[in-house]
Amino acid sequence: MAATTPVDRQFRDALGAFATGVTIVTTRDQSQHDVGLTANSFNSVSLDPPMVLWSLSKSSLSLAAFAAAKHFAVHILASDQDHLSTLFARRGIEKFANLDLERGLGDVPLLSGCSARFECRTEFQYEGGDHVIFVGKVEKFDHFGRAPLLFHSGRYAVAIDKSRDTPNIDTENAELDSSFSQDFLIYLLGRAHNQLFLELRRDLERHGLSEDEWFVLSILGVSDNRTIADLDRLLAYTGTRVTYELVAGLAAGEFVNIRGAYDPRVVTTLTDKGRRVVIELVSAAKATEGHATRNLDSEEIRLLKRALRTTIRDTDPGPPPSLMGPIHGE
Amino acid sequence: MAATTPVDRQFRDALGAFATGVTIVTTRDQSQHDVGLTANSFNSVSLDPPMVLWSLSKSSLSLAAFAAAKHFAVHILASDQDHLSTLFARRGIEKFANLDLERGLGDVPLLSGCSARFECRTEFQYEGGDHVIFVGKVEKFDHFGRAPLLFHSGRYAVAIDKSRDTPNIDTENAELDSSFSQDFLIYLLGRAHNQLFLELRRDLERHGLSEDEWFVLSILGVSDNRTIADLDRLLAYTGTRVTYELVAGLAAGEFVNIRGAYDPRVVTTLTDKGRRVVIELVSAAKATEGHATRNLDSEEIRLLKRALRTTIRDTDPGPPPSLMGPIHGE
Repeated sequence: MAATTPVDRQFRDALGAFATGVTIVTTRDQSQHDVGLTANSFNSVSLDPPMVLWSLSKSSLSLAAFAAAKHFAVHILASDQDHLSTLFARRGIEKFANLDLERGLGDVPLLSGCSARFECRTEFQYEGGDHVIFVGKVEKFDHFGRAPLLFHSGRYAVAIDKSRDTPNIDTENAELDSSFSQDFLIYLLGRAHNQLFLELRRDLERHGLSEDEWFVLSILGVSDNRTIADLDRLLAYTGTRVTYELVAGLAAGEFVNIRGAYDPRVVTTLTDKGRRVVIELVSAAKATEGHATRNLDSEEIRLLKRALRTTIRDTDPGPPPSLMGPIHGE
Repeated sequence: MAATTPVDRQFRDALGAFATGVTIVTTRDQSQHDVGLTANSFNSVSLDPPMVLWSLSKSSLSLAAFAAAKHFAVHILASDQDHLSTLFARRGIEKFANLDLERGLGDVPLLSGCSARFECRTEFQYEGGDHVIFVGKVEKFDHFGRAPLLFHSGRYAVAIDKSRDTPNIDTENAELDSSFSQDFLIYLLGRAHNQLFLELRRDLERHGLSEDEWFVLSILGVSDNRTIADLDRLLAYTGTRVTYELVAGLAAGEFVNIRGAYDPRVVTTLTDKGRRVVIELVSAAKATEGHATRNLDSEEIRLLKRALRTTIRDTDPGPPPSLMGPIHGE
């Protein structure tokens, strides 16, 4: 093989501009060992007869096995199978141990959890520079419909449908919608938050809780036994301060116990009642979230949350000045 | 060609599970006409020598041109070139009119605006069922690095980097971060909105404006001349009601003029001062947004907003009960 020159590198990078799915191609060699490797050089060729192709480096340790094999299987990987892709991209290791295998045509190992799978009879092997092009006739296939793993510019990626409609949210007021709502992230964030919170607010009112009180309870729900100063710092992003009065109000409602008096070092813990209410409200918030995101797929939800977290990190004003000494209310 | 049978359909669907970029392949036929078509059957084959392949249906009107051509060019399309993909996927139309063309090796037409481009000499033509496999030796290439258009399951898509980190947003409190913040959409929305709003709040305070007053001004900024009832309906999502008192306060500050008194049908219009302040604050909000999203790429911002709009549509409580008759304040 030629050493990697700058032009090689640039050529590889340019090829990387073509995004592809990721496949694992498997076969069984003449000594009945399972053989498999990661390839993104797969593509469809023919519908009638059904044929697919992929190409394999002439320097591959697996070349002899595929050159001799009558059958191979191509697995199109699902978006959560990047670990399998990475495993099968390595050389000279045992790849099939611990995997849940089925057996296909020609006793070829079949992997599960993928997006689609093609069992092929080797039809042609063509010259292709430093690679051999394998063309297979598809004899069986399965389509599981899972979201695909992508490879682009040397990194794993996921596909998001481009054609899906962006809904109008002010159908009554088209002129507002096009010029204002669509464009302003701060408006979209505020409106989405308010609408999600509307449902939760009803539950809060049933327990006689304010929004600020709910914030305090929800923090204690995941990390109990906090000082007022701690709670204040953790809730700084909400724009409100946690005061002794706020916590004392929760204690009066028997949601929390407090140890010590009128000091930011007062330790607050949930009562049994408080814990029950937190669990109930957290469940209600989760249900609201499920309802609100029912028309987003799991990748879209993951990306939505990732984008929000990136935005939060990049606008974090840092902790507020701490409340030193006794707090005297408002 | 065989008619489409259910198995054909299922096979096509299974092949669609393999996501690919989209290319346009062009050449120049023997009568010096430009020929081109959309193909997603492209792939790399060899690095040394540099070779790529794609396949073309034997029933294609362009087969004779490509079979005879010494050169062809492959264009990997960018995410905003779906219109070109659709244009070049049609049969028997003039595709090159109105396009900005360059000329490549063999006088082949080259398109601009794509993500990468390969100029190839035809090296092999291989049998592939109902398609011919063209293998080209890459003689020149360009890499423009634009985000790619994808094709998956019969639809256009975009690629989002999977490996990018999801930032920790409560680095001081890892236990909160993993169990609470990461998972709750309502928390992420509230915190993102609050942090974006913090900066804008400073500007509002400088003008002596409350958040509710800002909402009213921002609506008037895109659609002036509204009744109080109208404003109230448009701002229902914020959870506050627009009262006569609120609008009268804005009039006292010379941000708006009101015509009529103490009635939901009172018409509110921006003053020149009000309009100046709205423009200033909208610019400040846009600047905040640019800063907050500086680590998201344009596709991520587009998808973030699309997901938020979908969520807003799916949680919209509808207009509030209208405020009939005169309003008597709080």
